[in-house]
Amino acid sequence: MIKVVIIGAGNVASHLYRSFSEAQGLEIIQVFNRNIDHLNFVHDSEICISDPSKLKEAHLYLIAIKDEAITALAQELNIKTGLVTHTSGSVSMDALMKFENYGVFYPIQTFSKNMPVDFSEVPLCLEANTSENLNFLKEVAAKVSNKVFEVNSEQRRALHLSAVFVNNFSNHLFTLAQEYCQQNELPFGILRPLIKETVSKIEILEPYSAQTGPAMRNDQETINAHLAMLDEDKQKIYKILTESIQKLYGKKL
Amino acid sequence: MIKVVIIGAGNVASHLYRSFSEAQGLEIIQVFNRNIDHLNFVHDSEICISDPSKLKEAHLYLIAIKDEAITALAQELNIKTGLVTHTSGSVSMDALMKFENYGVFYPIQTFSKNMPVDFSEVPLCLEANTSENLNFLKEVAAKVSNKVFEVNSEQRRALHLSAVFVNNFSNHLFTLAQEYCQQNELPFGILRPLIKETVSKIEILEPYSAQTGPAMRNDQETINAHLAMLDEDKQKIYKILTESIQKLYGKKL
Repeated sequence: MIKVVIIGAGNVASHLYRSFSEAQGLEIIQVFNRNIDHLNFVHDSEICISDPSKLKEAHLYLIAIKDEAITALAQELNIKTGLVTHTSGSVSMDALMKFENYGVFYPIQTFSKNMPVDFSEVPLCLEANTSENLNFLKEVAAKVSNKVFEVNSEQRRALHLSAVFVNNFSNHLFTLAQEYCQQNELPFGILRPLIKETVSKIEILEPYSAQTGPAMRNDQETINAHLAMLDEDKQKIYKILTESIQKLYGKKL
Repeated sequence: MIKVVIIGAGNVASHLYRSFSEAQGLEIIQVFNRNIDHLNFVHDSEICISDPSKLKEAHLYLIAIKDEAITALAQELNIKTGLVTHTSGSVSMDALMKFENYGVFYPIQTFSKNMPVDFSEVPLCLEANTSENLNFLKEVAAKVSNKVFEVNSEQRRALHLSAVFVNNFSNHLFTLAQEYCQQNELPFGILRPLIKETVSKIEILEPYSAQTGPAMRNDQETINAHLAMLDEDKQKIYKILTESIQKLYGKKL
């Protein structure tokens, strides 16, 4: 049995807790958070702790807290032999180099507290300070996901940045469309099948090949008509993305 | 039996052909395109025509050609009684006002030639010059889709513009991420589950409520680190979308 401690009480921590609880061969022996009230997602309250000095010996520690708090917490923790990992996309592995065994366990997914996620489909990006630790991390990761990748710190930062584009920014485009629909008394739901298909398409095609629309066809008349319909802020976004598409596909600007 | 003529040979025309062929109570009696070779998606070559003067009497004409060609084609067509519609998101219904009966049959979906689409899930936005014509159009639309909406020309233009945001622009963000992944020797596929989840989420949540990421959390350190990793063009896009998120959620810029 591989003994695991989870540190944190946010979305990532709660999804790790759920997935690790259900996996074969893994045992969560403690969940730590300074405010113990936030650990209400843990079924067994006896394994919840709020005092970092009470941490038990485990094989693996998963630090799933805010990026900016990782370094400070690491200084406080007194862990001798277990492998200490964080789950951040942007924090360097070296933030944990005070430990003998350290690494990164980064799930590329967007987690919301009450949205169940099929963890077996979540890509896990692993990094560790020794090949032995990396192999151990791979063994653990394979128990919870089918998609395990070895990714160095630089690549992980690149992935995290890519995730901002595909997740945060595209969700914001959906939000702007939602706002615009409301202004025109249209239900946003009318766009949902299109959004779904946009994504289904790129499961088969590369996004580069799936591009359509006025910018792609260089349809300046439609582009001008659209620009005239938008407020200044949305206009700027429309313009910059249109120019970026035209540039990429060698259309005239 | 409702007799239908399809005009055009592009993605929309071929998907309309497929869906109308399979529907109960509809009969496609002709498909018109100037270059008859492009009508290879039509099973029965005898109904294909390339001479607009050979158009038969039908109950419904669906013009699915490029936006900029609609007005000119309409001038050429000699249709007496049937209902003449176009399928464009951005062209006004008035482009067809020379006919006695006219309207719009706008499917909000992204069509690629070899990607089958479940037409019953495609929202159809209808408009017509009389309520009688509108009712007839609704009757036809209900035979091919479960999602039928009455939408005026102004709302339709707003929808078309929204579709550019949710489809064209978000696909371009995926393409930029793909390019960036390639530069960092990462397979784009590693991001696919995240993209899928981004969309699954907004089937339950409104996109406004689903927003996450450094801009949303006002995490300026990560934002600065990301900006430093990008070339000038991607930097501009990152910046403008980050500012737009911060503005929308009342974060400091």
